[in-house]
Amino acid sequence: MSGFKGLAVPGPTNMPFEIRRAMDVALEDHRAPDFPDFIKPLLADLKKVFQTETGQVFVFPGSGTGGWESAIANTLAPGDTVLASIFGQFSYLWVDMCRKFGLNVDAIECEWGTGVPADLYEQKLAADKEHKIKAVLVTQNETATGVTSDVKAVREALDRTGHPALLFVDGVSSIGSIDFRQDEWGVDVAVSGSQKGFMLPTGLAIVGVSRKALAHRPEGGLPRCFFDYQDMAKTNADGFFPYTPATTLLRGLRASLDMIFDEGLENIFARHHRLAEGVRRAVDAWGMSLCAKEAKWNSDTVSAIVVPEGYNANDVIQTAYHKYDLSLGAGLSKVAGKVFRIGHLGYLNEIMVLQALGGAELAMRDVGLPFTPGVGVGAAVEYYAATGQAEALAAQ
Amino acid sequence: MSGFKGLAVPGPTNMPFEIRRAMDVALEDHRAPDFPDFIKPLLADLKKVFQTETGQVFVFPGSGTGGWESAIANTLAPGDTVLASIFGQFSYLWVDMCRKFGLNVDAIECEWGTGVPADLYEQKLAADKEHKIKAVLVTQNETATGVTSDVKAVREALDRTGHPALLFVDGVSSIGSIDFRQDEWGVDVAVSGSQKGFMLPTGLAIVGVSRKALAHRPEGGLPRCFFDYQDMAKTNADGFFPYTPATTLLRGLRASLDMIFDEGLENIFARHHRLAEGVRRAVDAWGMSLCAKEAKWNSDTVSAIVVPEGYNANDVIQTAYHKYDLSLGAGLSKVAGKVFRIGHLGYLNEIMVLQALGGAELAMRDVGLPFTPGVGVGAAVEYYAATGQAEALAAQ
Amino acid sequence: MSGFKGLAVPGPTNMPFEIRRAMDVALEDHRAPDFPDFIKPLLADLKKVFQTETGQVFVFPGSGTGGWESAIANTLAPGDTVLASIFGQFSYLWVDMCRKFGLNVDAIECEWGTGVPADLYEQKLAADKEHKIKAVLVTQNETATGVTSDVKAVREALDRTGHPALLFVDGVSSIGSIDFRQDEWGVDVAVSGSQKGFMLPTGLAIVGVSRKALAHRPEGGLPRCFFDYQDMAKTNADGFFPYTPATTLLRGLRASLDMIFDEGLENIFARHHRLAEGVRRAVDAWGMSLCAKEAKWNSDTVSAIVVPEGYNANDVIQTAYHKYDLSLGAGLSKVAGKVFRIGHLGYLNEIMVLQALGGAELAMRDVGLPFTPGVGVGAAVEYYAATGQAEALAAQ
Amino acid sequence: MSGFKGLAVPGPTNMPFEIRRAMDVALEDHRAPDFPDFIKPLLADLKKVFQTETGQVFVFPGSGTGGWESAIANTLAPGDTVLASIFGQFSYLWVDMCRKFGLNVDAIECEWGTGVPADLYEQKLAADKEHKIKAVLVTQNETATGVTSDVKAVREALDRTGHPALLFVDGVSSIGSIDFRQDEWGVDVAVSGSQKGFMLPTGLAIVGVSRKALAHRPEGGLPRCFFDYQDMAKTNADGFFPYTPATTLLRGLRASLDMIFDEGLENIFARHHRLAEGVRRAVDAWGMSLCAKEAKWNSDTVSAIVVPEGYNANDVIQTAYHKYDLSLGAGLSKVAGKVFRIGHLGYLNEIMVLQALGGAELAMRDVGLPFTPGVGVGAAVEYYAATGQAEALAAQ
Repeated sequence: MSGFKGLAVPGPTNMPFEIRRAMDVALEDHRAPDFPDFIKPLLADLKKVFQTETGQVFVFPGSGTGGWESAIANTLAPGDTVLASIFGQFSYLWVDMCRKFGLNVDAIECEWGTGVPADLYEQKLAADKEHKIKAVLVTQNETATGVTSDVKAVREALDRTGHPALLFVDGVSSIGSIDFRQDEWGVDVAVSGSQKGFMLPTGLAIVGVSRKALAHRPEGGLPRCFFDYQDMAKTNADGFFPYTPATTLLRGLRASLDMIFDEGLENIFARHHRLAEGVRRAVDAWGMSLCAKEAKWNSDTVSAIVVPEGYNANDVIQTAYHKYDLSLGAGLSKVAGKVFRIGHLGYLNEIMVLQALGGAELAMRDVGLPFTPGVGVGAAVEYYAATGQAEALAAQ
Repeated sequence: MSGFKGLAVPGPTNMPFEIRRAMDVALEDHRAPDFPDFIKPLLADLKKVFQTETGQVFVFPGSGTGGWESAIANTLAPGDTVLASIFGQFSYLWVDMCRKFGLNVDAIECEWGTGVPADLYEQKLAADKEHKIKAVLVTQNETATGVTSDVKAVREALDRTGHPALLFVDGVSSIGSIDFRQDEWGVDVAVSGSQKGFMLPTGLAIVGVSRKALAHRPEGGLPRCFFDYQDMAKTNADGFFPYTPATTLLRGLRASLDMIFDEGLENIFARHHRLAEGVRRAVDAWGMSLCAKEAKWNSDTVSAIVVPEGYNANDVIQTAYHKYDLSLGAGLSKVAGKVFRIGHLGYLNEIMVLQALGGAELAMRDVGLPFTPGVGVGAAVEYYAATGQAEALAAQ
Repeated sequence: MSGFKGLAVPGPTNMPFEIRRAMDVALEDHRAPDFPDFIKPLLADLKKVFQTETGQVFVFPGSGTGGWESAIANTLAPGDTVLASIFGQFSYLWVDMCRKFGLNVDAIECEWGTGVPADLYEQKLAADKEHKIKAVLVTQNETATGVTSDVKAVREALDRTGHPALLFVDGVSSIGSIDFRQDEWGVDVAVSGSQKGFMLPTGLAIVGVSRKALAHRPEGGLPRCFFDYQDMAKTNADGFFPYTPATTLLRGLRASLDMIFDEGLENIFARHHRLAEGVRRAVDAWGMSLCAKEAKWNSDTVSAIVVPEGYNANDVIQTAYHKYDLSLGAGLSKVAGKVFRIGHLGYLNEIMVLQALGGAELAMRDVGLPFTPGVGVGAAVEYYAATGQAEALAAQ
Repeated sequence: MSGFKGLAVPGPTNMPFEIRRAMDVALEDHRAPDFPDFIKPLLADLKKVFQTETGQVFVFPGSGTGGWESAIANTLAPGDTVLASIFGQFSYLWVDMCRKFGLNVDAIECEWGTGVPADLYEQKLAADKEHKIKAVLVTQNETATGVTSDVKAVREALDRTGHPALLFVDGVSSIGSIDFRQDEWGVDVAVSGSQKGFMLPTGLAIVGVSRKALAHRPEGGLPRCFFDYQDMAKTNADGFFPYTPATTLLRGLRASLDMIFDEGLENIFARHHRLAEGVRRAVDAWGMSLCAKEAKWNSDTVSAIVVPEGYNANDVIQTAYHKYDLSLGAGLSKVAGKVFRIGHLGYLNEIMVLQALGGAELAMRDVGLPFTPGVGVGAAVEYYAATGQAEALAAQ
């Protein structure tokens, strides 16, 4: 087949030439005398993306899953209680991991399409007079359903109840794309990956850790070595790593940070909001609905689109992929076959969104979904032409 | 700005990863003992794209303009008469070059939006009893207006009149995308470039030369060295070049040929036809018209779209470029400000066309052109969903 | 500074263009329908490099350290005894990790420059009538000292004593470069990384696991999730991964395997032996000695070269790096300042070794080491000119 | 075969990663509104490399041969007399081209290994009272024999005789590597290519043209179009080109200029001198001699090394290439089989030279040339360790 493949999944995202080029380097010695000159500013700059001054950001070869594990293994002991909620495949998997590590998980089952129930969290925290809950888990952006939760509300719940539990946030598909404020929201461990807002290939877990979390080493805590924060902190201080780092990706990360700062975090968040809104206008014009149950849950990085009864979302995805070279995201677990997902995060502009919408229309038409071809793209065109980045920034 | 730039000009075209990778090589010695093992099959395979068995294809560092010059300088003498026609910027420039080389050009001025007037050519040839006309020039695809001419009809005119003139074809934006048959149509020099159907970076003139043209060395002919066919033929026979070739592009050309043969010329032509037809459906849905005056002139590699009276096509182009990262082709010379062009050739699929159409709609909407956003994309979606490659192949 | 940097450390190694190109791809969806078509043969082919038919090879985002951890966390329980030996920085670190995971390590301290004491292992195993020893650790190639140990001898010790302990091998700097036979030697977990014999960037732990190890899940075993073999085995069976894999590196791994099979494992081992022998001839000609105490310990992937008393090896390394753009390996821990290391593994030929030797001579001369410039390179030239691949193959 | 190929020919040279990366771009529209923002400073900066303020530098898709042709076709008329000298393959070919263009060439045959006979030129110019000589040709660096000529001396001869002829210089393998001063030496056309001092792939002719040459359009001058200076000057003034330029190479050229200015022309010349001197020490240590007859002719970009009687230099070259992956330059025409050439220009440092010398020793040893392996490399090591860039700069 001819032509570029379109990539409209919620990560990996499209990779800028700047990053591709930055990674086109000869392999290098990670013990070289001038390696710290590269690493120290890199790690310092990462903190700006997490909006933390007091914490540290660690970079592991790994994935978001590795980041989750690091949060657990560094700060908790078997039998500890954690408070969590499940409303999609990724919030579920994190809970599942906690159980594998012998934690006692109080997991609130929520309707898929909603997010973290901050009010229920507050009730549970208030009730936990003995402070058995050692950590509270928040999936800021549930990639499976296109739902964004309110991290700040959970911090406020902790504060109002005076609860000392650690606050863990899965920011894999939000950090660098949707506003995230580690210090202001008092997040203790924030987990991200290279392949979303950082626009890099997969292969890195990027984890923001507060001073509190770094100092927290419970008696009888879980064992760890590869994901050990203290080993990492100690060697990072000198600009090195406790073991061989993924240097090529780190070179790419440097370019990623340069691009992020060049555009500005605020502008990036506004751009994501505006591009996402165009997608939502298209969905509306198609006469279809989002998996997110209310506008307040809408994610600016991914939209999960519910196909009408009697149709299989996988047909759209398979047709788009095999016939039209477009990767759309599949529905996972409970929503398999019911939704297809359009990722709209990372390196993205209006015409890339129009391509994804146009390609989705092509596949939808091909499999017979009821809609008038062009109306989705048209609605997005209307919206983009009528708004600018400035408006989007103000509208946030 | 974030996101990939869209490239929808009629060349350079989008470059496949396969070609990018093939050119990611260390520089190499073009006098190496095994260099001929690379060059000989490359030159042999090029002949298949020109559909010639009896001719040869030469590759010069250069551009289409260099290819035009080679045709003139190798086969003609100052004062020779050539028969040509002008109906766009590129057919004009070739005539202009002929004049610079001291040729006597009989250039028929045609309305822009039409193509080579084969009937008038036939009259002129019939009238030229003394065979003063030494060469007949045909621009197979006029990139400026999106017009394809009938090369075969010109060959038939030559045959019917028994005229011995050489037949030169500018196939820069057609060869490898639109059917071209050097042997069957008796073309003596066919000029192409690397950056169109070959999907390569700019930098090569690729020229098909018949045995007749190669042998044709008139008394008092023009001088030449860089573009000399006989020097090239002599060294090519051993797998070398008379001077340093652009080896990196040649490595890319190898990948290009592999891709072309893998898809198959017939399939490539059908794909171009189908993708182009989608663009034409969109233009129609917008209520606008092509620069091409009749369907028979429609080009399958580029569409020049006439904006309504009272609007400036350059506003569309500038808005698309500066605000939406999309390169559209400008109107040149007589049609400047009146048309914008969408190139649809080379490495291309449906979603890339939809992106170009969506981006054009965005810019058109932005500058206030009267149309309903989405109708163009919708018409293309309808057409693409309703047709397949097989249908397109049959419909040609 | 002008000119390519030379990389003569024992990993990362030099990366072939073939691998660079294979990784120059757009990011891709690791849940795409055709992803298994890529993954299944990749994992099957990896087994050939480990020379296993009955085991499985797992690929984690990570490093050798992650591979070590996977061996421990999947098969052992806190308090289990493991038998190990320390004779360099990397054999030490693995023991240290075991202790962090609450294992009871019987670690034999050996002189640096020697390797695994198979005879002592046998005594210990024979004495362990209750089979408290659950795993035996062997560092096949100690990168810090340039010492290769005899894995087969350890297997024989286990067999002679009828001891059921698992056999773990650190093959990070040997697998793919020095003969390693997982099935024949009954190795239960073999750990490698991407950046040595596989010639890839850093970022992957590549781990061969026997059926016995895969089935071995002790009561009260260590917790794990990211490095879990069974999760990996289950999803790999369908051509997927339990979490986002490092797809770009996997694309490179495909190219790596193709190159490895193209050259042939036997030829690769012979090439490493021959190139290493040239380095050893040079060291001898310089009047210097290896850290390896006897020829039987000589590593074919890295030579640690002892500088004469009164000189600091770090001066050689710093001068080579800063003044002559050549990365040599530093002495670590006990041998810091006493040795510099030349890595000679991976993508390597004679002229690359001569460059490393020439550069080392330049730095050695610069800092005043006593030797006649050229004698080292000359000895290697003599050896390489006098021998061929065939001889090296026979001489192994 | 494993390992990087060594490239030690006098062009193409080794290409820096910076340039490779700069050329890793999507194809782009050369009529884009912001294209001039890229082109204008590029052309202005090129002038610094030619050391001209009053002239212009033009960039053609092409090669050095195309540059030669441009000099002739733009400024001369058939029958014009040019003064030239032949002392190697490239000075011969330029003369041959002049003849093909109908010029009357007064070509002085010199011994190969010597250079331009400035004194004989002066006699000829003095004798030419009628100023029939319209142009004087100087090959600044004869790549075939490793001979550098004195351009300044020829300018002085022209000045002393008050002769108005144009001065043409072939600086293909000198400009950017060996001092060249277009304004100071009154050079009218200076020809270079992309693949030598500019460290780029082949594919560009880079030509410096004085105001005098640009204005010089003789009656009845040769026809030209592709290589026309005035068309180029006119469109360049607006930041465009008269036809499709080789944009990818131009992106590389930007990186090349940035690297050149970063190092500094003076430092580049000094580096070339020092690296070349190391090669000459090696040749001396081998007991062999250069093709250059006297030290004053020694080229700092290429050494042609004469093998002893009874040996065939091609055996060395073939062995180096096929057995040891090293490209050495062959002897051309009169010196075929008698010399092999080591190119030492462009992106180069000490260890790259040592690799070329080591590889040459390997091949020389393999084919039985009489010398002690290591002595050449050793002599270069001695020289490089004893000298620094500063000394080399002073010694020029």
